[in-house]
Amino acid sequence: MSPSPFSRFKQESPHPSTGPDPSRAGHFHTAHGMVQTPAFMPVGTQGTVKGVTPRQLADIGPQMILGNTYHLGLRPGDELVRKFGGLHKFMDWKGPILTDSGGFQVFSLAGLRRITEEGVTFQDHIDGSSHFLSPERSMEIQRNLGSDVVMALDECPPGRLERDKLEVSLARTTRWLQRCREFPLDPHQGLFAIVQGGTHLDLRRNHLEQILEIDHKLPFQGFAVGGLSVGEPKEEMNATLAEFVRELPSDRPRYLMGVGTPEDLIYGIEQGVDLFDCVLPTREARHGRLLTSRGRVNIKNARHRESAEPLDPECSCYTCTTFTRAYLHHLFRVGEILALTLNSIHNLSYTVGLTRAARQALLDDRFPDFARRTRDNWNTEEP
Amino acid sequence: MSPSPFSRFKQESPHPSTGPDPSRAGHFHTAHGMVQTPAFMPVGTQGTVKGVTPRQLADIGPQMILGNTYHLGLRPGDELVRKFGGLHKFMDWKGPILTDSGGFQVFSLAGLRRITEEGVTFQDHIDGSSHFLSPERSMEIQRNLGSDVVMALDECPPGRLERDKLEVSLARTTRWLQRCREFPLDPHQGLFAIVQGGTHLDLRRNHLEQILEIDHKLPFQGFAVGGLSVGEPKEEMNATLAEFVRELPSDRPRYLMGVGTPEDLIYGIEQGVDLFDCVLPTREARHGRLLTSRGRVNIKNARHRESAEPLDPECSCYTCTTFTRAYLHHLFRVGEILALTLNSIHNLSYTVGLTRAARQALLDDRFPDFARRTRDNWNTEEP
Repeated sequence: MSPSPFSRFKQESPHPSTGPDPSRAGHFHTAHGMVQTPAFMPVGTQGTVKGVTPRQLADIGPQMILGNTYHLGLRPGDELVRKFGGLHKFMDWKGPILTDSGGFQVFSLAGLRRITEEGVTFQDHIDGSSHFLSPERSMEIQRNLGSDVVMALDECPPGRLERDKLEVSLARTTRWLQRCREFPLDPHQGLFAIVQGGTHLDLRRNHLEQILEIDHKLPFQGFAVGGLSVGEPKEEMNATLAEFVRELPSDRPRYLMGVGTPEDLIYGIEQGVDLFDCVLPTREARHGRLLTSRGRVNIKNARHRESAEPLDPECSCYTCTTFTRAYLHHLFRVGEILALTLNSIHNLSYTVGLTRAARQALLDDRFPDFARRTRDNWNTEEP
Repeated sequence: MSPSPFSRFKQESPHPSTGPDPSRAGHFHTAHGMVQTPAFMPVGTQGTVKGVTPRQLADIGPQMILGNTYHLGLRPGDELVRKFGGLHKFMDWKGPILTDSGGFQVFSLAGLRRITEEGVTFQDHIDGSSHFLSPERSMEIQRNLGSDVVMALDECPPGRLERDKLEVSLARTTRWLQRCREFPLDPHQGLFAIVQGGTHLDLRRNHLEQILEIDHKLPFQGFAVGGLSVGEPKEEMNATLAEFVRELPSDRPRYLMGVGTPEDLIYGIEQGVDLFDCVLPTREARHGRLLTSRGRVNIKNARHRESAEPLDPECSCYTCTTFTRAYLHHLFRVGEILALTLNSIHNLSYTVGLTRAARQALLDDRFPDFARRTRDNWNTEEP
């Protein structure tokens, strides 16, 4: 019917009979290749995953990366990226790209903003200039960027918004979603809807119901869980995921936005999440905080000064197969750029590798054991 | 006779008959491989050439790199580097390494210092702690670092020191050189002597004479011209080089320290210099100032904002074969780490490539034409 290269989500494991365990491995297709899940997407905010070249990123091997509509729309500007053949060509990334809607940044990062039914007027957080983001403008930016997965524009309410205000916000997000769905994206692009509702399960279910009404007429290519990991207690987030993720349509990928830590990835996969993104691996890397198969390592710590050990003996990344902890410690202490690069390569490799290993464990029907061992490793003393 | 892997300098072109033109191509051997000259050595001050991984550096292909004794002796400390098998292993550089003596940094960078016949007491420029550098200590650090080429410790007087003070300094440098030569380096290490004398040709000749007396008994593996490019007028430096370089023994490599710009490299090669080092390519890269076959490019400049051109169409480096000027402009403007990496890769590739191309031009007996074209390109408007 549709010329879209998007396939429905194909579940590979466990066999898609309705069992009690929602965790799953699978894949779907995009114009820039297949995405095998579960998958962690590194964040390339400004047209680069911070600290690594696209060649180094390809070695790390993420299934898909994320670009930020807010940042790229402002700098260098989506029209310019379009003139250069889209974000893939501009930044030399040949695999799938998902772009967010810009909404989260407008609500968390930008200066003064004013929301109307039409959209949001906001101030650039760098130069204070005034801009307007609407469902149509978000779609236009993402069409210009040429991403494979386009995210619908949602209002991103604070984590602990009062219930009645949240209901007003959800209703508007649904109307915005309708406008996003009606926008003429490029045929190669797929649109993901975002379910909001904070930790109010009934509001979330109600929002999903409205989304599925739109989906019934014009299907979405995936569904995202938004409005979590925004400051609410971890237990409330987890309880919401445990109840809600399995209620999302199982024939489309499920994306948990802005998550997260290794523990959060494992928990999300257990609940049936397929896609994740987070700035954590690269941000932590720039602060010398490294994620390893044996838990967190602070490379600044003097205990690593004379360590001839690799950072993570179980990791096959360039950093771990080439350098000692002593060298990484030295680079970080003297403030060399290479410290940021090598740390970023490792943290990205660890996080992408964690979801890759989780996928394999799911295919091998040994995921619970894998999850338990990963948690045990993260609960030990710093190695 | 000696177990040293060092070979004398073998001149390949022009045929080593005594002609009027001192410029030459050649090679010599070290424990970590052959060094083909003329060659530009990237500077790896703190155990990394700033902004690039050793893998990226290997792609760039320098014949030899430089490490700084002052910095490495303080952080991480030469004893630690020795425990890790030397600087080659510590930083994963498999090719030849030259280390400087630490003298230049002590005289230009360190805080309060006091010079005696024995050596120099100085303050660490970072933490103010007190340290002592003598000929023996400099040799010890460089032995611990395990570099292929060890530089003798010299006093580095300011560019315009009065003649009588300079004579006192030169005499002490000669006595220090004798002590360096008597120090038991590792058999695989070669020692280069440094000729000082500022732009006073007679003092320089006199200093060289004293050095050759030591060399007559215990030969050096190379000779360096120090004390130029330290603030004196360019014409005086060039006049000194024109007279003096050809007086250095032709059967050992000749190294012009701390030089330099593309124009300076061409001029030095014309005068018979074989080796160069300078922080210029990486430092300029970090400021967005890029060296190209058509002259200098300031990538911050708005004229590059929408340029689909490669940075340098004649360059085959990763940066130039992969990205547009518009992308490099964007990365630099938004302050991404990748800007520093891609700019450094290019500037190093350009500079190393310039000496490689000069070598080929010498071998092909067309160096004067090559030098003229290079100068013409550098005298045009910014491309």
